[in-house]
Amino acid sequence: MFRKLKEEVCAANLALVRHGLVVLTWGNASAIDRTKGLVVIKPSGVSYDAMKPEDMVVVDLDGKVLEGQYRPSSDTATHLVLYKAFPTIGGIVHTHSTYATAWAQAARAIPNLGTTHADAFHTDVPVTGEISDDRIRDAYEEATGDTIVETFQRLGIDPDETPAALAVHHGPFTWGRTVGKAVEHAVSLEAVAQMATTSLALNPAVRMNPALVEKHYSRKHGPNAYYGQRAAVKSHVKRGKRES
Amino acid sequence: MFRKLKEEVCAANLALVRHGLVVLTWGNASAIDRTKGLVVIKPSGVSYDAMKPEDMVVVDLDGKVLEGQYRPSSDTATHLVLYKAFPTIGGIVHTHSTYATAWAQAARAIPNLGTTHADAFHTDVPVTGEISDDRIRDAYEEATGDTIVETFQRLGIDPDETPAALAVHHGPFTWGRTVGKAVEHAVSLEAVAQMATTSLALNPAVRMNPALVEKHYSRKHGPNAYYGQRAAVKSHVKRGKRES
Amino acid sequence: MFRKLKEEVCAANLALVRHGLVVLTWGNASAIDRTKGLVVIKPSGVSYDAMKPEDMVVVDLDGKVLEGQYRPSSDTATHLVLYKAFPTIGGIVHTHSTYATAWAQAARAIPNLGTTHADAFHTDVPVTGEISDDRIRDAYEEATGDTIVETFQRLGIDPDETPAALAVHHGPFTWGRTVGKAVEHAVSLEAVAQMATTSLALNPAVRMNPALVEKHYSRKHGPNAYYGQRAAVKSHVKRGKRES
Amino acid sequence: MFRKLKEEVCAANLALVRHGLVVLTWGNASAIDRTKGLVVIKPSGVSYDAMKPEDMVVVDLDGKVLEGQYRPSSDTATHLVLYKAFPTIGGIVHTHSTYATAWAQAARAIPNLGTTHADAFHTDVPVTGEISDDRIRDAYEEATGDTIVETFQRLGIDPDETPAALAVHHGPFTWGRTVGKAVEHAVSLEAVAQMATTSLALNPAVRMNPALVEKHYSRKHGPNAYYGQRAAVKSHVKRGKRES
Repeated sequence: MFRKLKEEVCAANLALVRHGLVVLTWGNASAIDRTKGLVVIKPSGVSYDAMKPEDMVVVDLDGKVLEGQYRPSSDTATHLVLYKAFPTIGGIVHTHSTYATAWAQAARAIPNLGTTHADAFHTDVPVTGEISDDRIRDAYEEATGDTIVETFQRLGIDPDETPAALAVHHGPFTWGRTVGKAVEHAVSLEAVAQMATTSLALNPAVRMNPALVEKHYSRKHGPNAYYGQRAAVKSHVKRGKRES
Repeated sequence: MFRKLKEEVCAANLALVRHGLVVLTWGNASAIDRTKGLVVIKPSGVSYDAMKPEDMVVVDLDGKVLEGQYRPSSDTATHLVLYKAFPTIGGIVHTHSTYATAWAQAARAIPNLGTTHADAFHTDVPVTGEISDDRIRDAYEEATGDTIVETFQRLGIDPDETPAALAVHHGPFTWGRTVGKAVEHAVSLEAVAQMATTSLALNPAVRMNPALVEKHYSRKHGPNAYYGQRAAVKSHVKRGKRES
Repeated sequence: MFRKLKEEVCAANLALVRHGLVVLTWGNASAIDRTKGLVVIKPSGVSYDAMKPEDMVVVDLDGKVLEGQYRPSSDTATHLVLYKAFPTIGGIVHTHSTYATAWAQAARAIPNLGTTHADAFHTDVPVTGEISDDRIRDAYEEATGDTIVETFQRLGIDPDETPAALAVHHGPFTWGRTVGKAVEHAVSLEAVAQMATTSLALNPAVRMNPALVEKHYSRKHGPNAYYGQRAAVKSHVKRGKRES
Repeated sequence: MFRKLKEEVCAANLALVRHGLVVLTWGNASAIDRTKGLVVIKPSGVSYDAMKPEDMVVVDLDGKVLEGQYRPSSDTATHLVLYKAFPTIGGIVHTHSTYATAWAQAARAIPNLGTTHADAFHTDVPVTGEISDDRIRDAYEEATGDTIVETFQRLGIDPDETPAALAVHHGPFTWGRTVGKAVEHAVSLEAVAQMATTSLALNPAVRMNPALVEKHYSRKHGPNAYYGQRAAVKSHVKRGKRES
């Protein structure tokens, strides 16, 4: 079942290692098949050295394991909440990458200080509120997902436009249309977290011009995006006409 | 003698290099055979490039060399004190890893600021008190071990739950049920030391909710742990029943 | 067309990855053929993993694409402004390297604090002024180039002597006689940006002696340069005479 | 001439790259043959990628080139001053390594904050005084050497015990009995410079106990050293006696 999705999820987990975002067995990636309502996720605490697509675990949206010889990631319940609340996303990544985690531990949102940030995230990357002691004890992983969803609702942030959150005292979650995109957002998040740390040490008061935020975000996203090659076909045609 | 333990200790020393925790010949790892009361430890000041299992040195708990063509690590006496005081541990690692050493030099305990820390260490990672000048001159390495043991007793910390200490002005020691676990704890310690440095620069007052500390520590440790695959057999059975 | 220049530009883009200056697809390098007035530039948003010389795009100084199956870098218009304003330069590099970008985000020029800086850059590395909202919306990439040129004119900096600028809130642009030299300057810039961050944390008031700036800059540049081997032929002759 | 010394000096230069202490062509290493009074040094500004032993340059103590197709390092005059003033040293290394250079730029000596420092350097690593504008213009590289020598004399530091100096606004010079030892000291210096930066951020007032400095320095150096294997022969004998 899900040969291709298992390969994608396994490759995403290994990409996190290659990008320097995980040490030991920390971190996990998953993808969802929206038609069937099933999620493929990394097994819990398994070494990355010998990880294979067939080690991935298949669970339904209630967390029931349908396939796989290992237990699913201990953060599975968080992934499931996000898949249910954010209907457009196809993949999720969680890491303990150094700088993004340091911001989560500091209980601070990462401010949008530059075009590197605005290229990937439309707003500040929010940090969640505290989880009550009762929920921590009873349904912690589910509550982690709930608090991400509540934070986006409270702040009016579109999860498609800012595909990242910092779970307070814990670390970053990112997502995207595919699990590959979720990995890219995890890489971008760690980079902007490191840059913001240094920028604020150099100039605590600096903020970016909102017009520049809009410009950079819309260069890469939305109907008039002109970064990359995806939109190139249309533009090739137009350019061909203009040039001829 | 101890072919397997020598291989484990040699592999642990090389893993420290691979994880970026040592430069030059700094750092050492050891393991104990509790039945025989003998310790296998890295030789002193030998290059990691050509280190082989047969280069490891066997000493008894009084520090007498029983086997090996090299002198044992100059920190051997510290290891022996810890093996004698902490009866459940099977391996010890000492490094000069950058951030953990910087905290030791700063004479500050590493506060438990996030789940990365709580997953590995139940409390703040303590820093030892100063050693008297007399003991520094007479039996320094033994005194380093003694001060770690005294620090855990004074603060009421269980060395199985927080398998790491910062020797003040010196650097980190970590331990575990096996020398492989001690390496993992050295890796975790360096990561949380770096994260805590940045978190405190961003928010000097932040601390983690005690309920969250308990939750994350108990996810990985103790009778109800549900992270990883070790506890999976029991749970497989339970899950099989629930699922069937 | 331009086989050799395409190879140089492709090699320069890959060198940025090797030097750790780019993640994902961020960053771009270009070179100009001054005789023909044509520019070879990296395609937009294409992965570095399989990048080949024939993927490079050829544009004229008005930005019209003359050759190449891909769209040119989204920053092409910035490159073209710089080629038109700085007639001696042959190559341009743009990155989002961590520390240089952090200074750009902090809206601070990088002060000339040491000989590493003075060897490569004769003055502080300037940060541009803000771009008006109108220009951001209408012709942003062109405006980015214009603001770099205006900043050099306003501050009286010779772009041959300080071949680098920080586009405010955005990141570094560097240039040189060749695209290979532009890569070297991007490497130097990131190094001095990181060093300056630490130096100012240790001593916020420190500045370098102007005589030392002149000495180091002139060791490497200008008629009396004596660093490296380029000037060695003349000097070999002189030395031969003196020595004989 | 000097086949073996050229191989050592070439290997030392390449070791600097491997240890991450140089970027581009920055940095240089040399060794002296005390019997002949001749110095083997890296050529100036030559790429490390294809550097071979036969590219090394032989100069006498007046700086006259006796052998080699390239010009010697532009810092040759500094090396020669140090060889003349410090008669016991056999090799010298100069780098622009990130943290040591940041301290030199900050015009601050690196305080002896921990055993990592005391293992390699008996005192704080001193920073030189300013060079007068006249000397900068006339004989800058020689003056750089002179100011290092003067700093050690003024502070009463033994260059054999603290084999490193920070040339103010410039960067680190290290030395040793051999050029290989000088490389090791450059590695240690960069490590302690980075650790000290973080330690002082965490605790600006911390200093190490002088008795601990003496203990760690004497563990590795002097008549009673017991770190490493060099002193092992004597001690093997002693231990053999004691053990038998």
